Amino acid sequence: MDSRRRLSIRCLTGLGFLLSSVAFLSLTADRWREPRLNLKNVEPATKVRVFTAPKTNVWADLRPDEADEVYKFLSKEWVDLNITRTPRHTLDSFIYTLETLQPNKSDVLPYLWTQESAPPQRCAKAVLSHALDGRAHYSYHAVGPLPVSPDTRVVPLTFPFTSGRHYVSKDMPDMVSTMEFCRSLAESVADITTELLGARVDRDNPNGPDSLLAFPRTTWNDAGHLFGWVQFFRPGYNSGANSILPQGIYARIDAVDGSSGGEGEDTDADWKVGEWFYNGVLYENLNKFRAAVFEPGFLKTPPNVDGPWTDTENFDASPDGRELPPPISIQPLGPRYKLDRKERYVSWFGFEFYFTSTQATGVSVHDVRFKGERVMYELSLQEAMAHYAGDDPMASGQEFLDSFFGMGTNAFELVPGYDCPAYADYLDSHLHRLGKTERLPSNICLFEFTSDHLLSRHTTATSVTVSRNTFLTLRSVSTVGNYDYTIDYVFYLDGAIEVKVRASGYIFGAFYARNAHKTEDEYGHRVHDALSSSLHDHVISFKADLDVAGTANDMVHLAVEPVTKTYPWDQPHFGRRNTMHLREYPVERETGLDWPKNAGEFYLVYSSDKKNAWGERKGYRIVSGTGIGSTPHLTVVNSTVLADAARWAEKDLWVVRRKDTEPRGADPFNYIDPVNPLVDFTRIANGEDLVHDDDNETSPTADGDDSYDGDLVIYFNVGSHHVPHSGDVPNTLAHTSASSVLFVPHNFADRDPSRESVQGVRLQLKHKREGAGFPGQPGGGDGDDDDDEEPSEEEEELKLRARDGNGNGREGKGGHHKLHTGANYFGTPYRRGVNLPLEALEPDLEKAYQSGSHRVSDLSSNGSAAGMRFQEP
Amino acid sequence: MDSRRRLSIRCLTGLGFLLSSVAFLSLTADRWREPRLNLKNVEPATKVRVFTAPKTNVWADLRPDEADEVYKFLSKEWVDLNITRTPRHTLDSFIYTLETLQPNKSDVLPYLWTQESAPPQRCAKAVLSHALDGRAHYSYHAVGPLPVSPDTRVVPLTFPFTSGRHYVSKDMPDMVSTMEFCRSLAESVADITTELLGARVDRDNPNGPDSLLAFPRTTWNDAGHLFGWVQFFRPGYNSGANSILPQGIYARIDAVDGSSGGEGEDTDADWKVGEWFYNGVLYENLNKFRAAVFEPGFLKTPPNVDGPWTDTENFDASPDGRELPPPISIQPLGPRYKLDRKERYVSWFGFEFYFTSTQATGVSVHDVRFKGERVMYELSLQEAMAHYAGDDPMASGQEFLDSFFGMGTNAFELVPGYDCPAYADYLDSHLHRLGKTERLPSNICLFEFTSDHLLSRHTTATSVTVSRNTFLTLRSVSTVGNYDYTIDYVFYLDGAIEVKVRASGYIFGAFYARNAHKTEDEYGHRVHDALSSSLHDHVISFKADLDVAGTANDMVHLAVEPVTKTYPWDQPHFGRRNTMHLREYPVERETGLDWPKNAGEFYLVYSSDKKNAWGERKGYRIVSGTGIGSTPHLTVVNSTVLADAARWAEKDLWVVRRKDTEPRGADPFNYIDPVNPLVDFTRIANGEDLVHDDDNETSPTADGDDSYDGDLVIYFNVGSHHVPHSGDVPNTLAHTSASSVLFVPHNFADRDPSRESVQGVRLQLKHKREGAGFPGQPGGGDGDDDDDEEPSEEEEELKLRARDGNGNGREGKGGHHKLHTGANYFGTPYRRGVNLPLEALEPDLEKAYQSGSHRVSDLSSNGSAAGMRFQEP
Repeated sequence: MDSRRRLSIRCLTGLGFLLSSVAFLSLTADRWREPRLNLKNVEPATKVRVFTAPKTNVWADLRPDEADEVYKFLSKEWVDLNITRTPRHTLDSFIYTLETLQPNKSDVLPYLWTQESAPPQRCAKAVLSHALDGRAHYSYHAVGPLPVSPDTRVVPLTFPFTSGRHYVSKDMPDMVSTMEFCRSLAESVADITTELLGARVDRDNPNGPDSLLAFPRTTWNDAGHLFGWVQFFRPGYNSGANSILPQGIYARIDAVDGSSGGEGEDTDADWKVGEWFYNGVLYENLNKFRAAVFEPGFLKTPPNVDGPWTDTENFDASPDGRELPPPISIQPLGPRYKLDRKERYVSWFGFEFYFTSTQATGVSVHDVRFKGERVMYELSLQEAMAHYAGDDPMASGQEFLDSFFGMGTNAFELVPGYDCPAYADYLDSHLHRLGKTERLPSNICLFEFTSDHLLSRHTTATSVTVSRNTFLTLRSVSTVGNYDYTIDYVFYLDGAIEVKVRASGYIFGAFYARNAHKTEDEYGHRVHDALSSSLHDHVISFKADLDVAGTANDMVHLAVEPVTKTYPWDQPHFGRRNTMHLREYPVERETGLDWPKNAGEFYLVYSSDKKNAWGERKGYRIVSGTGIGSTPHLTVVNSTVLADAARWAEKDLWVVRRKDTEPRGADPFNYIDPVNPLVDFTRIANGEDLVHDDDNETSPTADGDDSYDGDLVIYFNVGSHHVPHSGDVPNTLAHTSASSVLFVPHNFADRDPSRESVQGVRLQLKHKREGAGFPGQPGGGDGDDDDDEEPSEEEEELKLRARDGNGNGREGKGGHHKLHTGANYFGTPYRRGVNLPLEALEPDLEKAYQSGSHRVSDLSSNGSAAGMRFQEP
Repeated sequence: MDSRRRLSIRCLTGLGFLLSSVAFLSLTADRWREPRLNLKNVEPATKVRVFTAPKTNVWADLRPDEADEVYKFLSKEWVDLNITRTPRHTLDSFIYTLETLQPNKSDVLPYLWTQESAPPQRCAKAVLSHALDGRAHYSYHAVGPLPVSPDTRVVPLTFPFTSGRHYVSKDMPDMVSTMEFCRSLAESVADITTELLGARVDRDNPNGPDSLLAFPRTTWNDAGHLFGWVQFFRPGYNSGANSILPQGIYARIDAVDGSSGGEGEDTDADWKVGEWFYNGVLYENLNKFRAAVFEPGFLKTPPNVDGPWTDTENFDASPDGRELPPPISIQPLGPRYKLDRKERYVSWFGFEFYFTSTQATGVSVHDVRFKGERVMYELSLQEAMAHYAGDDPMASGQEFLDSFFGMGTNAFELVPGYDCPAYADYLDSHLHRLGKTERLPSNICLFEFTSDHLLSRHTTATSVTVSRNTFLTLRSVSTVGNYDYTIDYVFYLDGAIEVKVRASGYIFGAFYARNAHKTEDEYGHRVHDALSSSLHDHVISFKADLDVAGTANDMVHLAVEPVTKTYPWDQPHFGRRNTMHLREYPVERETGLDWPKNAGEFYLVYSSDKKNAWGERKGYRIVSGTGIGSTPHLTVVNSTVLADAARWAEKDLWVVRRKDTEPRGADPFNYIDPVNPLVDFTRIANGEDLVHDDDNETSPTADGDDSYDGDLVIYFNVGSHHVPHSGDVPNTLAHTSASSVLFVPHNFADRDPSRESVQGVRLQLKHKREGAGFPGQPGGGDGDDDDDEEPSEEEEELKLRARDGNGNGREGKGGHHKLHTGANYFGTPYRRGVNLPLEALEPDLEKAYQSGSHRVSDLSSNGSAAGMRFQEP
């Protein structure tokens, strides 16, 4: 504990004047907005204004110049390590990644909430890959303060990790030689693969439809022995479809030299080939497998052959209607939000927030306020898991923790007009790795959208009021190998905030062996000639550091429960009533929660000390949102392959104390050391009590002692139990893969705040006393009690808001508008037609999409198209 | 049983030639589409084509001329009843409603699925209100065949009702005199109401902010004695806000003459006033209440005063951004669906369906097919319940079954450009009641919309493919008093069908008595000076008569379960694995189901005999959709106030045998006879077995014997546990009140059908072998293994679809498109800019909204603005 604390402080000491100058620079720097579409014949758009964040974005990723400076600094500090930018061997030393070390919240709050305070020290977090005692490691280091000065130091970074370690050992085989081994192995069985699959490794045409790829999936057994299985795939090069082209031949491989996690030897692959598995039958060795294959009467199963069925497009079909483009959303007069692109700061109808992006976890949102009140300190993805099951050696052990591959690293360029509206703002990210900085162009977008449905409406006998539901979306798409995750942070006019993840892309199927023991149905559906859909769970963890009207918060369940009651005014006429009521249960310890049965409990985070005008605690409700049903957690109990790497997946929601030493619930390197993960979530959600002294709220303390100021953090999961079916081929569809959690204001304000910002119209109808909703009652029908007198408009106006003088003037603003018969708009309606250039409807993708700088996992030259993901090991 | 069967047959006998001529007329009648927006400078829109439904819409509501004919027929048949069009008394005889009697499915299927068959007999369903033995009744009658001929008969209609009855007794007080009684009662306590509320009944200015309304809520006690409570409201006339203006004074009333359900006397109100209840204290009678009120030191609680806080609009606030209109969706080149407005038949990218609307339950959808295959015979709302709880005499007993008030009757005109896009198709409905036909203009809309997110996408090293998610929505909005329900049937390109209901409008609050025993928190939050938010459950029932690829279907749960397994190829190296697998559980009896824990089961309806190309049963999945979390059922167990009126609310989902004698799971009149409801759902879902002989499928039998052909029906609920908070004032917001159930194809086709219809683009990138998803691996970074050779476009084309010759040509169509580097569109993109007239952005509501014929529950002349709903009794 002491050492973590020390490091934390160490990293944060520094030179005030440098930090001040950073702040100065950032405050005077040029902010801009991109010019909008050139529209004619429209009302003048609002002026291009300089919009400036009130503070520096202290969470911002390193700028390229900062990264460069740190690289230089580290190459001096680590001069003995022979840092290379082009590693050739797993034992080479190189800077794996570099990014901002997120400042401690305890240091940021004074900066955000007081006038005098300087921003917290800026530090970098470097991941070094290097050999120690002959074994490769990844290790975390803090570098700071920045900019580099004589005071800048690099120190091991341990405080964010529950393990107390700052490294994981990277006891994996060398990928280059292992891939070469696999390829050679595949070549050595070309006779078999040709016979069974009609395919073979073809170095001259590696991406041909009947070429083969061979990948290993390796792991450790209980005794610490490294072993794995090699599987063959067709490349599916045309659309990146290899994950639905498994070939159903599996070869067991074992590390021959006994190199294992415990030993620290050169981990260059030196493999012994063991059993072979095909069509449900295990063969002791290659000779026996080969002999069997060429024996007459050998039982073959149909191969999994590429073809148009893996195409993601159908250019030729022309059903009625396809000759027309679909409806489309436009924003001809420009955006209604304000964006400081430099500081990545957004203001939209009361919402204000910063955002940034990191290589491991993608886009995150910080210091979210609504109408000046604090709502969230941080909202960020932590980890994205896919956990498979199956009865073949690959599918059965397959799981991915995608932050290891990089949700930000794999957030590729968005297609304007498709991934996001043509009118969206697009922003770049940077990757700092291997001593270099790369740009990921236009991989974040921000846009407002108007729903197909209203936010609110009401019809009365004399008026109709309709209010549009517009929302603001911050979006990125991470394509991690086969899957594309569209990740949205959505903001609504009433203060609601949503996290929504949609999956598309290719499933990772399993080979369907028709003639084998028919256990495939136990793990999926048959979705092509020789493809099983391969059951898997997606569980994606997010952190929400809620600060509902301040940091001191309490979590409660508000249960809606059936009850039998007797009421004093009811006796003796009615007796006992079966009815329902509310009961509140405080959450007094760190714990995991599942969504309640019958949605019968509200999970509420309340301010510990702030109430609204009606005396109700200001709160936000946490609820499974507008995805498909309620978000699930991992089906597998105590997963063998995951070990302790992802215990957060076992419940829907967690509430824990916020600590500087627990900034994240997961670490990317958990993936390669699941048994001894750097961050073990069970040590974060470990039952500490959440009862606190309300007086602490105004001065949140750095942690390190046992005092607790009420600053809690929610971890929650989105995802799905995915049993793909024929409709997932070629790609999973996003509308039914959506999963969401919503944070909805609950007594947060005194009244619905959207009334102040929404656009809509009140139709004041001619005052006719017309029919009732149902006949046979007084006033029903259009019977002869109709009274067709129509008061003059003037009379209407006088009458309609007559009560303004009498009414409760608490809200002040309301009621000054004179209503007239007809359409009374609030907010601003369209007032003229517009002349839309083609770009507003269909961006010129040949220009707009920066394909030249487009990057995507492309391991095809090494045997894998489309970023097939490797397990290490 | 026999009698029901007989009636069913009776109604269906008739004259073939008449029916044939109806069919002839409908086939030759003029079909049309409305001309679209007048757009300049755009590509020529597709021609206006005549689009004709293949069959007559046998579910269509009565045309005005048909209704007229039936009215005339009935006035002769019922000449002795003195039918009036202007009833003045509850014992008067009048035709309450008239609509189409939905034909039996067993009669419709031959018409739909064979060439020779004539449409089934057309019949009407009339509800007669009349006195029998001195008691008022509602009774159902079948009238047919239509058109009226010498063979036309009117007979009591009993077969659709589990009760075997065709009537309910309407033992309620006369509303006119009861309302007058309440008003007089309120006037008699003007001194008290002025003292406590600052308000009194004001006949000269009944809608003034400090005028009072007085409503009764009556019910029966265990002994059959009619009693109730009168409550006072401020009128909230400006916005129809009376349901949030309860005044907290309650007077008990008892029928003095002993008139009760069992007796059959004149039910004119003749009331005795009993206890008074105010601020948590019960007073034995008015004298004691009055004495207490004017005693010094009497404990008053603040009144619930109207004011700007009930306004649904804020015209004056001008936060940044509100000076601009929000983004908006356009469809400049016209719709892509086809609509036969006369037959109410739609065709859209493989979907084909009919729709209609009824007064009780609003819009329903019929004979839904997808790509020629049957999916659903019927999808329709059954009932919409709101069930309250509270500790005052009103809130505690309050429940509404809104079909009684009429979900169709109260489906008012939609606001073009707001309720639905400006480019939507709008259709009218008709109400046939009291011997007249009224038009509800533009109260159904149909439109296509493009989501803010994609349907599918995938990025590879060399290409990106993005496909737009467009969907088709059929919408209506029912404003039943305080609440506005937006009801959508949504169709997706992959064959998915969604039912989605969103609530807005005013909550029905309870008076918040500040000084009383503080039990209000048990039933809601305080949301204004003297208003409690009043906990309630919304449970809305729909029927889905699924015919997945035919009528013979099976329902199963496909469970995703944790399991510990040992695999043959795994031993002894790994041992037992904690993993998961699938297990299927058939549903073998009629039953109610709740959504599973952790979403761990798929509810699937499979074709009993049809499989897809891969041997998987064609199916649809039923899943809680894109509303807020999973849909809930009623919290209250065995509700005292509901009795047997709505047992369907007790589970999320039901599966039952389909029968001609069980066309609906609820009846509107259940509301007024909950103890002996016309339709008791427990007699529909009564445990009959669902195991069937597969051979029956092709000839679905009329019911009446015990054979079961596998034709099952799903009843399901949407809704919410609504604990309104300050953000529900003034109106509940629809984005967080949404509730949905989705029907998603599950192995229904051989491959994703949306590929044939979707619009999107494939970006073929320049072929660069660029960086991998993570560095430190071969191909990672932009290291020196880059290969910047760029093959010529020609080479690309040759290569990219080279495998077409080799591939599996099963799908036939795919793969003929020559890809080129850059944007390859599928479907039709926009190709020119457009000049949009203002009407495409902002319809001229002063013209477009037919306010002259706008109708809404307006009981204000009788004391209630905005259709305050009465309980009968």
